[in-house]
Amino acid sequence: MRAYFDHCRSTYVDKDVLDAMTPWWTEKYWAPASFTYTGTTAAEAIEKSQMAYAKLFGGKPDEVHFAQSHSLANNIAVQGAINGKSLETPHIITSAIEHGSTMDMVKQLEKSGKVKVTYIPVDKNGFVDLDVLRKSVTNDTVLVTMGAVNYMVGTIQPVEQISKIIKEANPDTLIHYDVTWGLGRLPNLSFAPLADLLTASIERIHGPKGITALWVKKGVPIKGPIYGSQAYSRIVPGTPDVPSIVGAAKALELMQDNLPSKIENMRRLRDRLINETMNLVPETLLNGPEGDLRSPSNVCLTFKYVEGESVEMYLDMEDITVDTGSACANPFLEANHVILAMYGDYERAHGAIRMTLTWTTTDEEVDKFLDVIPGIVSKLRKISPLAPKVYKE
Amino acid sequence: MRAYFDHCRSTYVDKDVLDAMTPWWTEKYWAPASFTYTGTTAAEAIEKSQMAYAKLFGGKPDEVHFAQSHSLANNIAVQGAINGKSLETPHIITSAIEHGSTMDMVKQLEKSGKVKVTYIPVDKNGFVDLDVLRKSVTNDTVLVTMGAVNYMVGTIQPVEQISKIIKEANPDTLIHYDVTWGLGRLPNLSFAPLADLLTASIERIHGPKGITALWVKKGVPIKGPIYGSQAYSRIVPGTPDVPSIVGAAKALELMQDNLPSKIENMRRLRDRLINETMNLVPETLLNGPEGDLRSPSNVCLTFKYVEGESVEMYLDMEDITVDTGSACANPFLEANHVILAMYGDYERAHGAIRMTLTWTTTDEEVDKFLDVIPGIVSKLRKISPLAPKVYKE
Repeated sequence: MRAYFDHCRSTYVDKDVLDAMTPWWTEKYWAPASFTYTGTTAAEAIEKSQMAYAKLFGGKPDEVHFAQSHSLANNIAVQGAINGKSLETPHIITSAIEHGSTMDMVKQLEKSGKVKVTYIPVDKNGFVDLDVLRKSVTNDTVLVTMGAVNYMVGTIQPVEQISKIIKEANPDTLIHYDVTWGLGRLPNLSFAPLADLLTASIERIHGPKGITALWVKKGVPIKGPIYGSQAYSRIVPGTPDVPSIVGAAKALELMQDNLPSKIENMRRLRDRLINETMNLVPETLLNGPEGDLRSPSNVCLTFKYVEGESVEMYLDMEDITVDTGSACANPFLEANHVILAMYGDYERAHGAIRMTLTWTTTDEEVDKFLDVIPGIVSKLRKISPLAPKVYKE
Repeated sequence: MRAYFDHCRSTYVDKDVLDAMTPWWTEKYWAPASFTYTGTTAAEAIEKSQMAYAKLFGGKPDEVHFAQSHSLANNIAVQGAINGKSLETPHIITSAIEHGSTMDMVKQLEKSGKVKVTYIPVDKNGFVDLDVLRKSVTNDTVLVTMGAVNYMVGTIQPVEQISKIIKEANPDTLIHYDVTWGLGRLPNLSFAPLADLLTASIERIHGPKGITALWVKKGVPIKGPIYGSQAYSRIVPGTPDVPSIVGAAKALELMQDNLPSKIENMRRLRDRLINETMNLVPETLLNGPEGDLRSPSNVCLTFKYVEGESVEMYLDMEDITVDTGSACANPFLEANHVILAMYGDYERAHGAIRMTLTWTTTDEEVDKFLDVIPGIVSKLRKISPLAPKVYKE
């Protein structure tokens, strides 16, 4: 049995979610429409999901849309809001530690000359610099986009405070939070009302793949970036994926069932992983904050003198899955930009492994990791050109 | 048991497709990556699907991408190719009878001043005017985008001839065909080599919802319109939906199994629907071509003096699903633009119903329709202000 610690990239789809989706694939596979039994049946299923997500976001059902991928949702939120304002060269703000779906998009938009971007620096725990943020919001700032919880090191940003700072500096600046890594990790999204746009990928909470909830507050103008039929949604063109939308509602319902004890279980296992590994393996560094300001599901460690990728490969051979950075950075073996922004230390960034838990993660999985990690790190340090002599014996 | 004749909008997902997808949801729910067991397992599954679609399109596996929605795929093909050429105001060409995912996109791009568009007119059977096409392709024409088989009236365009005309007029003009309504309806896509971009939505061949295969011939520059991590695909940013990509390959395999007899069965039932309805109901008009130049799965009829929507509603009450136009036009009750472009006749356009078959459509479903349609039309003509006296008795 594999010990899987990469839930911030993908999770198994819950059996109950698949069961909820099945009739919409096999029997009620209809496109939504206004005045037939088939069409209204599908339309009502969508509305039910919209209601569930509206409740989560603190918005109204018709403000909730479903995009078919996380990247698509973030592009609609960011590019759509920028286009909606129709400025010559709009100014946007993000942080230095965003996930690829935001970071790569923003950099590509910047490169193509479509936007001016300010990247807010972060401190050693990954918290955005609020003073720099305050000074960066100008009259031309169309949008601030940020992950509410960092995907890499689990920093829970003070989003309520961030929202207030932004709206005080410019009430017209739109605020977009990607809450993907907060879903099922934060007790609620009570900070939502000050935001204008929220995205939440459902594949990280044991929901269907791809489908991503997108909340667009009434009055926020969205234009593009993809165009097509607006019959079902003014925001996400095309035919909605009804089974996935149904599955998204089921996944949310299951996630919310007993959420405080889910969070508590993750937090306990997270702290076992962090503390026991640091006890077992000398010169292990924790990346990101400790305690309540860290996502209960995030562990990010650097074992000095070794490469994260090597640790990942050795763990993989022991049937243990961890990760070394964003889905994006991975194949290129680039140093993770989050750790780099936090510590300015290439070695620390190259050495990082990330473990992300879910509410069904077990003590047995944690034990399995703890059993092998000291041996793996010491083997790698033996052959590392960087490691001091003490590790070579 | 409902008789369902709307397969050009959505189809049931085949049980074998769901079975093929299930382990990728429940056990192998991993993100693709380069050097771990989990990552390469997922990556290999994607490659297998790329190979299957490369064979269909006559291209290479790494030219095949999977977008998470039909609209997204068409936007990447059209907007991506336009952006890739970086012209000031690029000229593109489409036909007057495209599906919403292309038509609405093109119109919105035109409206925002991003492109100049030529809409090629069609004849009474829905075939594009080749002379007008020839004269319309200029040195500035970046792209021609067209459905290979029309979604509304089933016209099979002479795409091979169309491609030659375009490439003769300007070899640099890119050709994009949406082959969605040809998949499982045409014996093969032998016309593909002269094209540069193809899109094929898999939810119309009993595959997973949303997922759409996108072929981009090597060397075709694509830029945007959505941005993000290019780790898995330079063309479709973000994390691929592995289960859907696996399901897409299974759906294609099932579709190709005994395809000629599938086509023959649809053609036979199509002609039963057309001929027997026209015999049973006076003043019934066939929209689009007859015989081999028409998709074997498409029936599009206008019952004079009645509204298509009324017929659709009455049929719905008899547990029969038909449609009146594109998914898009539907909720707004606009006259279908395809019929309008073909005949210039609002009444004919308002009166149209479309029935689209699949390979599992049965004689019993056809009988069920034929049993009730004369009564429904005659009831509606009795109350129609447009119908002549003979129908009022």
